[in-house]
Amino acid sequence: MSTRIAFLKGHGTENDFVIVPDPENVIELPPAAVAALCDRRAGIGGDGLLHVVRSEAHPEARHLAAEAEWFMDYRNADGSIAEMCGNGVRVFARYLQRAGHTGEGDLAVATRGGVKTVHIDKDGGVTVGMGRARLPEGDVTVSVGDHSWPARNVNMGNPHAVAFVDDLADAGSLNEAPPFSPASAYPDGVNVEFVVDRGPRHVAMRVHERGSGETRSCGTGACAVAVATARRDGADPTVTGAPATYTVDVPGGTLVITERPDGEIEMTGPAVIVAEGELDAEWLESFVR
Amino acid sequence: MSTRIAFLKGHGTENDFVIVPDPENVIELPPAAVAALCDRRAGIGGDGLLHVVRSEAHPEARHLAAEAEWFMDYRNADGSIAEMCGNGVRVFARYLQRAGHTGEGDLAVATRGGVKTVHIDKDGGVTVGMGRARLPEGDVTVSVGDHSWPARNVNMGNPHAVAFVDDLADAGSLNEAPPFSPASAYPDGVNVEFVVDRGPRHVAMRVHERGSGETRSCGTGACAVAVATARRDGADPTVTGAPATYTVDVPGGTLVITERPDGEIEMTGPAVIVAEGELDAEWLESFVR
Repeated sequence: MSTRIAFLKGHGTENDFVIVPDPENVIELPPAAVAALCDRRAGIGGDGLLHVVRSEAHPEARHLAAEAEWFMDYRNADGSIAEMCGNGVRVFARYLQRAGHTGEGDLAVATRGGVKTVHIDKDGGVTVGMGRARLPEGDVTVSVGDHSWPARNVNMGNPHAVAFVDDLADAGSLNEAPPFSPASAYPDGVNVEFVVDRGPRHVAMRVHERGSGETRSCGTGACAVAVATARRDGADPTVTGAPATYTVDVPGGTLVITERPDGEIEMTGPAVIVAEGELDAEWLESFVR
Repeated sequence: MSTRIAFLKGHGTENDFVIVPDPENVIELPPAAVAALCDRRAGIGGDGLLHVVRSEAHPEARHLAAEAEWFMDYRNADGSIAEMCGNGVRVFARYLQRAGHTGEGDLAVATRGGVKTVHIDKDGGVTVGMGRARLPEGDVTVSVGDHSWPARNVNMGNPHAVAFVDDLADAGSLNEAPPFSPASAYPDGVNVEFVVDRGPRHVAMRVHERGSGETRSCGTGACAVAVATARRDGADPTVTGAPATYTVDVPGGTLVITERPDGEIEMTGPAVIVAEGELDAEWLESFVR
């Protein structure tokens, strides 16, 4: 590994990332180095790390190189590997645009979850295809303290329970996982969203992310909320053929979610690069030697 | 304000700072910009900001320019102004060394709390004079849940309650302020340290910082702990004439505290620059325009 390393810091609705450009995949990023970079006090700090590599230079993405020039080698803040991150891929696209690797318009990005289609808008928004929602049948209930609410079971590749409430403050502190029933609904735990109406096709949410506590934004959670709200409102694009678009306020900003007639869900929102620089050589070496 | 701004990120025992070099004091840093820079998800992230200015270029430090070339214009993470920060001044000195403005050895730094004497060691440690401790008389008790402990009242310019415990885990979550009595002991609240012995003149502590919750390090807290432990051990340098040195493990690293015969307390520990770079112009402009 070289003794200096370029990085950027960016966020999408305050889901934030350390970005490490490495087109030829020459930088070693063992889990300890990733965890150190994502450490908010002893490192740069981020919810995750976006390692930017040409698909042809990475063994996990070489087979996708014909479809997508760039591979998002996504790492969780603890250094472990993840398949995909919806806000992450939007920030990844913004970085590619800033670096001159792509312009406005459509872009394909290789991820461990397959090739994702991204669109960079003229007005600053970045859209990513998030796949389809599944809505398992069956009543679900979530609780916080003495309150209980019925919830909609929505699966976006990961499990969600979406509860409509009168006031987001009713959900209290969401750092602990809200209990749910029946236990069989979510054998591996669940992400829980609490939702209030803000206006026509406009809602606001708070989220408990499984394993993370309350977070500022959750891309799949915003999609699950949009689909659950559409169904509550009697809208199902796959039946009516009319796309359904919802504005979803998350604590860290605003996302716009569209469910298309073919069931594909698109998420649009801001993606911001805040800073760029170089890591200090001595500090970095302490993690890679 | 220029449309780009250089910054560094550094920490001392994981008390972390955004550093903004600005020798001629030309960068506007209104509270909203400081808060944005210190925001851990939407900005760079830090416990505070070190604005590095020549004393002669800053109206609050011009009168100190003959004693100290550089002024630490310290800001809290919320953008408010603070007098001093012990770990901050150590990181400030490390930056000056890195930038070639000073070498190893002694250095005077102007702060709103007066001129501080700093020493940069050959082996990487940085020492700062922290002033003297006052030990108000009177019994104090602190509590967490069902546990209560007697505590020593130590004032380092700010108030501390130091409690010796059998196990640091007994203090539970320290994000909420531990109740204390009598109320008259700390009319403005208190920083609370829980301490266990690790070996001869070696202790470990956890801290609740007033207004911040549990933190990774607290410079004045480590000094208060060293003094309280010395007195518990029957050591008082101001009486015996022999300096007392204690090693204090904090969650974010290790500090060495020496109380000299004249009562002056010196704190030594690591000070690390992690990264340097430039802030993105468009992002910064959104806070200063």
